[in-house]
Amino acid sequence: MKLATLKNGSRDGALIIVSKDLSKYTDASDIAPTLQSALDAWATMAPRLKTLSEALESGDAPSMPFDQSAVESPLPRAYQWVDGSAYINHVELVRKARGAEVPASFYDDPLMYQGVSGPNLAPHDPIPFTDMAWGYDMEGEIAVITDDVPLGVSEADALGHIKLILLCNDVSLRGLIPAELGKGFGFLQSKPPCAFSPVAITPDELGAHWKDGLVHLALQIDYNGKPFGRPLAHKDATFSLARLVSHAAKTRPLTAGTIVGSGTVSNKGPDGDPGKPVSEGGLGYSCIAEIRMIEKIATGESVTPFMSPGDTVKIEMLDDNGQSIFGSIENEVKAV
Amino acid sequence: MKLATLKNGSRDGALIIVSKDLSKYTDASDIAPTLQSALDAWATMAPRLKTLSEALESGDAPSMPFDQSAVESPLPRAYQWVDGSAYINHVELVRKARGAEVPASFYDDPLMYQGVSGPNLAPHDPIPFTDMAWGYDMEGEIAVITDDVPLGVSEADALGHIKLILLCNDVSLRGLIPAELGKGFGFLQSKPPCAFSPVAITPDELGAHWKDGLVHLALQIDYNGKPFGRPLAHKDATFSLARLVSHAAKTRPLTAGTIVGSGTVSNKGPDGDPGKPVSEGGLGYSCIAEIRMIEKIATGESVTPFMSPGDTVKIEMLDDNGQSIFGSIENEVKAV
Repeated sequence: MKLATLKNGSRDGALIIVSKDLSKYTDASDIAPTLQSALDAWATMAPRLKTLSEALESGDAPSMPFDQSAVESPLPRAYQWVDGSAYINHVELVRKARGAEVPASFYDDPLMYQGVSGPNLAPHDPIPFTDMAWGYDMEGEIAVITDDVPLGVSEADALGHIKLILLCNDVSLRGLIPAELGKGFGFLQSKPPCAFSPVAITPDELGAHWKDGLVHLALQIDYNGKPFGRPLAHKDATFSLARLVSHAAKTRPLTAGTIVGSGTVSNKGPDGDPGKPVSEGGLGYSCIAEIRMIEKIATGESVTPFMSPGDTVKIEMLDDNGQSIFGSIENEVKAV
Repeated sequence: MKLATLKNGSRDGALIIVSKDLSKYTDASDIAPTLQSALDAWATMAPRLKTLSEALESGDAPSMPFDQSAVESPLPRAYQWVDGSAYINHVELVRKARGAEVPASFYDDPLMYQGVSGPNLAPHDPIPFTDMAWGYDMEGEIAVITDDVPLGVSEADALGHIKLILLCNDVSLRGLIPAELGKGFGFLQSKPPCAFSPVAITPDELGAHWKDGLVHLALQIDYNGKPFGRPLAHKDATFSLARLVSHAAKTRPLTAGTIVGSGTVSNKGPDGDPGKPVSEGGLGYSCIAEIRMIEKIATGESVTPFMSPGDTVKIEMLDDNGQSIFGSIENEVKAV
């Protein structure tokens, strides 16, 4: 089933069920007023929501047209957002651009940081812009939402705790990252609020495209209306999303409604090379930083600028019939 | 007024008001069912809660005896927990123990990380113990809870967004920190859930002891029933709590119910030296790591072990009459 959170003037919005083709929705707040409340008691709520979802599909439930701009991120504020780096090609490019090696441990011990998750941007919210020097960038990611995950969960058991899948635009302030990481405590100011896709889906909606804890489809990232990235979310993933959940839970239980991110989806080129822009027949990139690094590796200089007011990013994922699965994240950078 | 969250089998507990002497409480859930819901509409809720608090003090409200072990942390799950390092003496000791300098920027740019805040440990919960090699340690801290804080708030304006003050035991896994920080993304597995004090108070409860965004009183930290630390929370603070709130909000608004921590309270000795244990007439330490660093600086070897099952830590703060202000955090390390 597909779930979303209708804007209603409250902090947490109202839970709705969206049809598989994203054309209509039905109110689910009689079952659970908010997505968080559904996740708090998922084992009992999920079957009831599924029944309503089936009634929506068959036309037996009251429905209204679904408007992607009328929803919050599925969790407008979440108790936890931890973001991994499953696609180590991204890390390799960062390091290569500055002439550094990737430590061997990075291939079996995920990088992960805890980020801000309240308030999250709505899927079609602007990205508030303050200062060009902050280096505004997008990052196209896959994310999952868990129920309660016990401390020390294995990767195999973690898979069963992935209840919902969604997309993320992890907004990043590249201009602030070097100094902040240099301080040694990780990201804080360099990671402002993310936007998530209008709809979060149960894994069964992906059918065979959900396999081994990875989504076997391409992210569709457009920048200023042009194709920018078409990376495959299952390719070059060093870690599955289940492995990232297990990593996050090694020393602490995860509370229901925890969102775990994949990190920037990033593919190597066909020969293990950094890959080409979409305009040159490649799969492109999920963030501007990567094309800047590739430019730097190739010519010694980054040319593509980071985002400034007026720039737009659109992130979605299409099924085999070209139908949008999660709806689209659409953010325009706007001066505050 | 003093607020707490009664355990009631739900994830968020029930909001209660506690008397100034911590002897009795009255149910406040008619005004706001939970502390989070009160913070979500603080401007309207606070006056109503204050009226009830005054009725509790005067005996005009129904009351029950207050039991510190019957409460959750004030926010059993919070949308955000960011922890600063206001007491740079702690950082100086860490660096000195490994022969490194403290970068000059650390004196005007706070260190801060985002940590896990759901579920938080209850004030008298055990600390779940898994592995001696993880290096279990406590950290005695001051923390504040904000209402909604706008992006880019100044330090002066941030002060007014501090609605509640409480104490924190920031449990830390010292054995995991070096490798995790070495990866460059900051703390994640090395910071399991914290415990907070039974009671959170409005700043006016501290009278003249709340000044310039700092609490002008000593933390009382006992380890295994003996005085371990009596550090002064206003002394050697490089940054005020308002400054830490402002730092956290530089690139993002803070959602109501954000908890901001001071970092380990840490004082220098009278001559700027690292300070002495309480047993030798000093103010002692807020964490085991500090005494281990001082041992290492003095003799080349750390002697005091980190915590193991059966070890207990108690953290509280006393007013001028020796009365506990926030109640006490009391955690015993217990194998899971």
